[in-house]
Amino acid sequence: MKISRECISCLARQAVEIAEEATSNITMQEEIIKRSLQELGKMDFNETAPEIVFRMHQHAKKITGINDPYKGLKEQYNEIAKEIYDRIIDEKWLDKAEDPFDMACRLAIAGNIIDFSVGLNLGPSDIVKSVEDSMKHDIFGVGSAALQKAVKESENILYIADNAGEIIFDKFLLENLPRHKVTYVVKGGPIVNDATMEDAISTGVTNLVKVIDNGYSAQGTILKDCSSSFKEAFSKADLIISKGQANFETLSGIRDKNIFYLLRAKCSSVASIIGCKQMDYVLTSY
Amino acid sequence: MKISRECISCLARQAVEIAEEATSNITMQEEIIKRSLQELGKMDFNETAPEIVFRMHQHAKKITGINDPYKGLKEQYNEIAKEIYDRIIDEKWLDKAEDPFDMACRLAIAGNIIDFSVGLNLGPSDIVKSVEDSMKHDIFGVGSAALQKAVKESENILYIADNAGEIIFDKFLLENLPRHKVTYVVKGGPIVNDATMEDAISTGVTNLVKVIDNGYSAQGTILKDCSSSFKEAFSKADLIISKGQANFETLSGIRDKNIFYLLRAKCSSVASIIGCKQMDYVLTSY
Repeated sequence: MKISRECISCLARQAVEIAEEATSNITMQEEIIKRSLQELGKMDFNETAPEIVFRMHQHAKKITGINDPYKGLKEQYNEIAKEIYDRIIDEKWLDKAEDPFDMACRLAIAGNIIDFSVGLNLGPSDIVKSVEDSMKHDIFGVGSAALQKAVKESENILYIADNAGEIIFDKFLLENLPRHKVTYVVKGGPIVNDATMEDAISTGVTNLVKVIDNGYSAQGTILKDCSSSFKEAFSKADLIISKGQANFETLSGIRDKNIFYLLRAKCSSVASIIGCKQMDYVLTSY
Repeated sequence: MKISRECISCLARQAVEIAEEATSNITMQEEIIKRSLQELGKMDFNETAPEIVFRMHQHAKKITGINDPYKGLKEQYNEIAKEIYDRIIDEKWLDKAEDPFDMACRLAIAGNIIDFSVGLNLGPSDIVKSVEDSMKHDIFGVGSAALQKAVKESENILYIADNAGEIIFDKFLLENLPRHKVTYVVKGGPIVNDATMEDAISTGVTNLVKVIDNGYSAQGTILKDCSSSFKEAFSKADLIISKGQANFETLSGIRDKNIFYLLRAKCSSVASIIGCKQMDYVLTSY
């Protein structure tokens, strides 16, 4: 999904947010904002938004010398998500569900509300609301039965993660997949609140399935920049489960793979491409 | 009023709007957007937003070769405003008003809704609504009586106009001022829908008061770039009536002049500096 005209003001907003999250030093903030806007001014309209945002973050990292400014926030959201996860386990939501696989998909999609790039000013109550609403709302797209069928027909499932916190909600779905066939993918390095190996270990995802990283630290999956070992895993997979907007933005141009996208359509550009309403719960394939 | 962090995404949005208003040629649009974003990336945080926007428009003018892309829209809004003006005259709103000066101020402020830079997607019905609401709403600030007192005590009134269309609503207030003391100021050249001498002539403002231009074609009043004859008029004035946001943004740093600002606070940054709510009707002085 190429950058849209609508993305431009959103990326400029992110330039400010990246600067303010990276440092409290005003001079550094202004330098990051200016460098990021210059980067935006040099973009190629055939690029995806995550490619441009990656270069903005590189400026912030270079100027501040801090590689992972969101580390504390990621830990905090892993904690918050863990509390909600425990409550769902205690209350036996999946055991009681008429269709546990559908319930697991809904929870995995609900967790995708945890996204620090889309300007939602998220609080813990928004996550609880996303989870509760996911039980009531129609899921836009092909339906969980289509994914379940694809899972049954697959030998090699690549599950591409999105954010810290959210990955705890992925556990519900991972537990409902043939785990020996699943490889779970996190980022190769920190970028905003995207999940890394550290998060996969601390949240226990590594106890459930094989976890690899993609060898790159941009949001989404910019295939050309990922490690050769990830590219090989991607190539081998006969089913890809892709979580979140940035993975959709960077993978939706690939049409020769069987990819299911699970996400909340938080921004209007993504919603418009998918054909759903903004904030919809989406489970779709191309 | 220096550019705020909030202004940055708004200016990026304007970069896209400037490009799309300037030409339908996609390649040219992309070039304008990129040049404008690069301009944004080179900004000085001590500048005002109209200074940056001026340079963006210069790129658009240079790339397209079109000096006044908003000409047709300005004429259209002068027509729309004229219809509403005639209705107010026919219905004798000012004759019937308990306080005609206050009513004239309200109408002049209401007309400031006609602004193509703030992303309001304005239609004719919004102008009628702005006029009708101006009768009901409290006016934020010092009140029309304070302006009326200042007018009585002044010998040399400079009335700095804002937009085409809006200038027709200024006529209500001009007719309630000692017209021989008033000099009305339009822009020295076209920029978005700002009023120029052509608009002052076509709307009959030139029949009411002396009209001069400021010798520059940026939004607002960037004093250092205006003509020496305008600067002289500005210096001589003992009362300045400033219309609209951009004039507020560019003049509010000047504290040794008696300036009254009449505007609708359409953007949150301006509202925050003034201390009012967004979309408030404002008549204030510093």
